[in-house]
Amino acid sequence: MENFRIDLPADRMPRKWYNALADMGQMMKPPLNPATGQPIDPSALSAIFPQSLIEQEMTGERWIDIPEPVLDRYMLWRPTPLVRALRLEKHLGTPARIYYKNESVSPAGSHKPNTAVAQAYYNKQAGVKRLSTETGAGQWGSALCYSCAMFGLECLVYMVRVSYEQKPYRKMMMATWGGKVIPSPSDSTNAGRAILAKDPTCSGSLGMAISEAVEVAAGDKSTNYSLGSVLNHVMLHQSIVGLETKEQLKMAGEKPDVLIGCIGGGSNFAGFSFPFLPEKLNGQKIKILAVEPTACPSVTRGKYAYDFGDTAEMTPLLLMYTLGHAFVPPPIHAGGLRYHGMAPMVSALVNNGVIEATARAQKPCFEAAITFARTEGLIPAPETSHAVRVAIDEALECKKTGEKKVIVFNFSGHGLLDLSAYDNYFAGKLLDIECTPEMISKGLAELPKVG
Amino acid sequence: MENFRIDLPADRMPRKWYNALADMGQMMKPPLNPATGQPIDPSALSAIFPQSLIEQEMTGERWIDIPEPVLDRYMLWRPTPLVRALRLEKHLGTPARIYYKNESVSPAGSHKPNTAVAQAYYNKQAGVKRLSTETGAGQWGSALCYSCAMFGLECLVYMVRVSYEQKPYRKMMMATWGGKVIPSPSDSTNAGRAILAKDPTCSGSLGMAISEAVEVAAGDKSTNYSLGSVLNHVMLHQSIVGLETKEQLKMAGEKPDVLIGCIGGGSNFAGFSFPFLPEKLNGQKIKILAVEPTACPSVTRGKYAYDFGDTAEMTPLLLMYTLGHAFVPPPIHAGGLRYHGMAPMVSALVNNGVIEATARAQKPCFEAAITFARTEGLIPAPETSHAVRVAIDEALECKKTGEKKVIVFNFSGHGLLDLSAYDNYFAGKLLDIECTPEMISKGLAELPKVG
Repeated sequence: MENFRIDLPADRMPRKWYNALADMGQMMKPPLNPATGQPIDPSALSAIFPQSLIEQEMTGERWIDIPEPVLDRYMLWRPTPLVRALRLEKHLGTPARIYYKNESVSPAGSHKPNTAVAQAYYNKQAGVKRLSTETGAGQWGSALCYSCAMFGLECLVYMVRVSYEQKPYRKMMMATWGGKVIPSPSDSTNAGRAILAKDPTCSGSLGMAISEAVEVAAGDKSTNYSLGSVLNHVMLHQSIVGLETKEQLKMAGEKPDVLIGCIGGGSNFAGFSFPFLPEKLNGQKIKILAVEPTACPSVTRGKYAYDFGDTAEMTPLLLMYTLGHAFVPPPIHAGGLRYHGMAPMVSALVNNGVIEATARAQKPCFEAAITFARTEGLIPAPETSHAVRVAIDEALECKKTGEKKVIVFNFSGHGLLDLSAYDNYFAGKLLDIECTPEMISKGLAELPKVG
Repeated sequence: MENFRIDLPADRMPRKWYNALADMGQMMKPPLNPATGQPIDPSALSAIFPQSLIEQEMTGERWIDIPEPVLDRYMLWRPTPLVRALRLEKHLGTPARIYYKNESVSPAGSHKPNTAVAQAYYNKQAGVKRLSTETGAGQWGSALCYSCAMFGLECLVYMVRVSYEQKPYRKMMMATWGGKVIPSPSDSTNAGRAILAKDPTCSGSLGMAISEAVEVAAGDKSTNYSLGSVLNHVMLHQSIVGLETKEQLKMAGEKPDVLIGCIGGGSNFAGFSFPFLPEKLNGQKIKILAVEPTACPSVTRGKYAYDFGDTAEMTPLLLMYTLGHAFVPPPIHAGGLRYHGMAPMVSALVNNGVIEATARAQKPCFEAAITFARTEGLIPAPETSHAVRVAIDEALECKKTGEKKVIVFNFSGHGLLDLSAYDNYFAGKLLDIECTPEMISKGLAELPKVG
């Protein structure tokens, strides 16, 4: 029996998060106030975020202590296993060695609780009563409902309408943890009503749902807003994924050649790969590869520019790869990847050539996911299937070249609540919905003018 | 931070199953041939089971080596964690210490793969091409589809119709692993057609689905039958759950006072509790408590008698607690507990006063499940909610008496594919469907005459 699962002992779980900002030098530019075009005053964020998270958003400290109550919750499912995909390798006939970090073992089924637990904790500490947020396919929303239940907070979730309808089990999961779920765009906010007035059948997007959730938090003192990706403090909290992976690869005696994660807002990819940045920036040869859907190709076809994080232009301007905040992605099943922008940290690293991005269509991703399910046994989330696809593509490339690369990807979530997407696939109803050049130029035409 | 998760290191995962038959002396009576009333000839089973499993069904050996390829698959998710339910304890205000063994971390989401992987392996070794089986809520069917995918076998699943309709995601899961799923009763077998002729809208039962699956296996040389509970070899394979739990309790410095598992066919309960039998039979004070639904109370209201394992009278007669093989349980959400009989080993131990049984109604079980989800974070399967209910009841009893009991239960599966049941609960549509005295006397009236 080959030892294919590498478990990090509980007493070696990281006690600090890694902050990649410390190693990014001058790569990052500050968020801007859209009214003035000047860097925002951090205090402007205090209407919707607690002070502790605003500080984490800005700090250049390399290591940040993880609070005990957060470690305590992590312990329910962390450290997560790193697994060698021996059966997949055999099935592909590749000389590559494929590993995946299994973040699907959390109660909510993805990496999202790594930051949700932390954000719920810091907001509870700040005396907040309720968190509002957005969710695409529901991974983030359920993670935050779970975390709010753990710390005694209420949770209000704006769920992108197309996902709300495609994935009824997600809203039931959130309700089981005590959360309240509203399909977005909704008539419960000004932002939602404005969108519905233009398009009453609008299928929604993460950008729209963010506008609704932010509006609620901004207008209610006891409610804060919580974001599941994009922001620096989210990347920070997710770094536990990559920190564990590094230790586990050491235990296995492996050096990674390729690191792969899917990107929607960027958090699972960042959390998984950023802890390897010091080595990469120090000259070690590691290919760090982000995978986005061809239906929402913010990095591979978007522009590196200042843009709003949301549709209703309520957030500060962030420098990032974007398709324009007015861009509405086609309704692919990977709802968590349907975001017009990209985390500024991920964007800056792409722009500086440190990491690379590639895009894949929906159907080949599902094919890869089914191959993975039938060889390795785990059913990937549609988002995760993008990482699986590219891990397989890289391994097949090794088959051609004979290279014995070590390919490591983040299995960011399971697809047990996305099975209707698989059902569609088997019924031949799953389409490769692409975004057209017209959609992209229309989105980019509405970028805000800065400076 | 209190260490509330007890992980058994991978190199201490048990390498042998424990066979409780070795310690049950003369408690067990042999299966009978219904035609002659005489003990069956083991060779009669070879039409549907491989020789290796027939031997495991009969053997009195205390320890059975787990084959390497089975250990290898177990390693994907085993050893499973033992977790102290600190938040639940606090919420209840109980002096008791509550632990749960988390079997929900397997790819199929329950304890079922422990035997499914073993059965797929032994059948593959015997040259079988396909396995047929029945499933209630789908936990077993998906475990077997997963396991067949791992060993390159086809899988045909008869799924009880009420669950097939209530739980569409389960059939999608089975399809993702390559399985074929047919709602039962169906027109694909003589047994199914006979039932439909009497009642075209029949909601099905495990007993009926067993008849269909056995009929297919008996009539096709390359197909064997696989049962997810009831039989001795299934109890054997599940013993890894209790063996790990014993080690983990030792690591935590605890001696259990109460062990709790839900029972449908009996396998999760047996696997969890039987490894404690030597101590119990040796005089150690442990309460071993099985929980069944009041809607299908085979042990608490049935008869200890020889009966068929299936509805169509195709199986040998087994001495067990039964409501009669013609009994059709009301359509509660805990489909895995809707079985008229009970594992002969569990039955014999109840009959000899070694273990106890109790019954709970559907609604209080869901209430307990929601309490558990909101304190501990995991969403229980409807079956598992029965164990959660009684663990909470025992802990509340300790609150009254002040006793600091150690209560340990088997968290046999998660409810992520059963969320429609929770949705029903929140919508106020979940009923306490009971079985009436008339239903029971009607079922018992059709018990076969023996000897």
